[in-house]
Amino acid sequence: MTEILVLRHKIHGMVADRYADALRERLPDTPVRLARTPDQERDLVTDATVVTGSSFAPALFDHAEDLELFASTYAGYDHLPLSEFRDNGIALTTASGVHGPNIAEYVLGAWLSMARGFLTARRQQRDRVWQSFQADDFAGSRVCVVGMGAIGTAVLDRLDGFDIETVGVRHSPEKGGPADEVYGYDDLHTALADARYVALACPLTEETNGLLDADVFRTLHAETVLVNVARGPVVETDALVSALRRNHIGGAVLDVTDPEPLPEDHPLWNFENVLITPHNAGHTPSYYDRLADIVAENVERARETGSWDGLRNQIDLH
Amino acid sequence: MTEILVLRHKIHGMVADRYADALRERLPDTPVRLARTPDQERDLVTDATVVTGSSFAPALFDHAEDLELFASTYAGYDHLPLSEFRDNGIALTTASGVHGPNIAEYVLGAWLSMARGFLTARRQQRDRVWQSFQADDFAGSRVCVVGMGAIGTAVLDRLDGFDIETVGVRHSPEKGGPADEVYGYDDLHTALADARYVALACPLTEETNGLLDADVFRTLHAETVLVNVARGPVVETDALVSALRRNHIGGAVLDVTDPEPLPEDHPLWNFENVLITPHNAGHTPSYYDRLADIVAENVERARETGSWDGLRNQIDLH
Repeated sequence: MTEILVLRHKIHGMVADRYADALRERLPDTPVRLARTPDQERDLVTDATVVTGSSFAPALFDHAEDLELFASTYAGYDHLPLSEFRDNGIALTTASGVHGPNIAEYVLGAWLSMARGFLTARRQQRDRVWQSFQADDFAGSRVCVVGMGAIGTAVLDRLDGFDIETVGVRHSPEKGGPADEVYGYDDLHTALADARYVALACPLTEETNGLLDADVFRTLHAETVLVNVARGPVVETDALVSALRRNHIGGAVLDVTDPEPLPEDHPLWNFENVLITPHNAGHTPSYYDRLADIVAENVERARETGSWDGLRNQIDLH
Repeated sequence: MTEILVLRHKIHGMVADRYADALRERLPDTPVRLARTPDQERDLVTDATVVTGSSFAPALFDHAEDLELFASTYAGYDHLPLSEFRDNGIALTTASGVHGPNIAEYVLGAWLSMARGFLTARRQQRDRVWQSFQADDFAGSRVCVVGMGAIGTAVLDRLDGFDIETVGVRHSPEKGGPADEVYGYDDLHTALADARYVALACPLTEETNGLLDADVFRTLHAETVLVNVARGPVVETDALVSALRRNHIGGAVLDVTDPEPLPEDHPLWNFENVLITPHNAGHTPSYYDRLADIVAENVERARETGSWDGLRNQIDLH
């Protein structure tokens, strides 16, 4: 009998109770336990076939005798004990795709807000000034999306009605994707040269660490709007601050920063043309529902096939 | 020989010289004059076949002996001397459609900004607070667009990738349009009842004056985000302020207000969940290019047909 354990977990203020409820709705015949303390985690993991949470304490392996699947509630998995999962024959799935729609909405909202001068409007509003200002067209421009995974693709999929030229950048450009042109990281400068609106939606890897350095800021159009929903270190912060100070880019909307959280005395807080959000582009009220969809689908698939292979969002640990 | 006169005119800080240049580019064989003073307007109108500008002073009729077409640079035309145009056999065209793409970008940007809590983020940024907050999904929600002319249609056309239910409201619902459901103004409450995101993009008429009154605010969902890109008086300002004070709607993004401009001591300036822009959603750097496209197309059409009938954006004055 499959039994699911939800580890202590909360995200953007939403408690894991809602996640457990979402799993129970989808798998009414499967016991779903919720651990509220470290002791309960240790006790309840003993009978669990599936454990789901944001991390897995190595100490739990000793008790996890029936464990077949760890379903991560994050899209990334570098922080997890991958070799122990492999050695103990435990399958691993991620939450990849769960954030696609809402992060894509964030990126489009950020680009359009900057095009329409909403930050200027907000400043005028604070001072109660009614004064017309010029705005930019998003239509007719070229956008570049760096990273064409679930999020980058979700961004590109929403651009159909906007009369936009699209460029994608990805590790394996030969895979193509829903962009007019697709480049590899070697051709980053070419991809960015004429892009008026840029979004970073790539994983943080050796290849993307410091990807936007001073040299790239020299290439970027002086009116380019940069949106970062990837990870802070994909942008060299000093180079970004320098470009902003010299008016070498049009503005930035940053959900992630380096360092993060941004210290109180950091210059990035203060630019009129920079909007900072506290790493919550990923927040969605549908988070637990979309997660539960993945886990429930995989539990049912394993029940049918009798195997914890070939699951949705499964990571190959070998 | 057709001769075009561009009247004194500027919009959002862009001078009419650019408009004249855009016309010359498109009609290299047609003289295009630019009047910089009232005297020049009177002098140059004498030989003009086509006059284009935002208004037409009645005193000019005495001099406008060759005038065949007045090409308004505004979408609206109620401010123009319509009966004099008719009596003098002068055709009238408008700038309808010129603002469609940029106003639609404004509406999408406004909805997504509010969904993603950008106003909250901006407040936190001012105080240098890094604190995650909850946001809403735009996906899966129902939007209602009131008015399905060039602007309302442009909004709806951009929603394809967003997984959205769309409702349109228009004077003649039997005409249909690119929405899942289309209602008349009689069914406004039905159209708005479940709409989470609303945009007003209708003309100001007897039917739409005060359309959003206290009763409609009672119908609207408590989390509804209202965007007004129509005209201020389409919303009863007192009813809106009252709904905001009681937290009966989720927020508002207003490009137009009543009164307009908004007086310095008006309560609308101060709500945390209201963004005010100074009637410049219509601004686009492509304004004069798109205008010149219409005028040039009509001049060429008249040259071919020998008649100033059946023009693009022509208003029937009879």
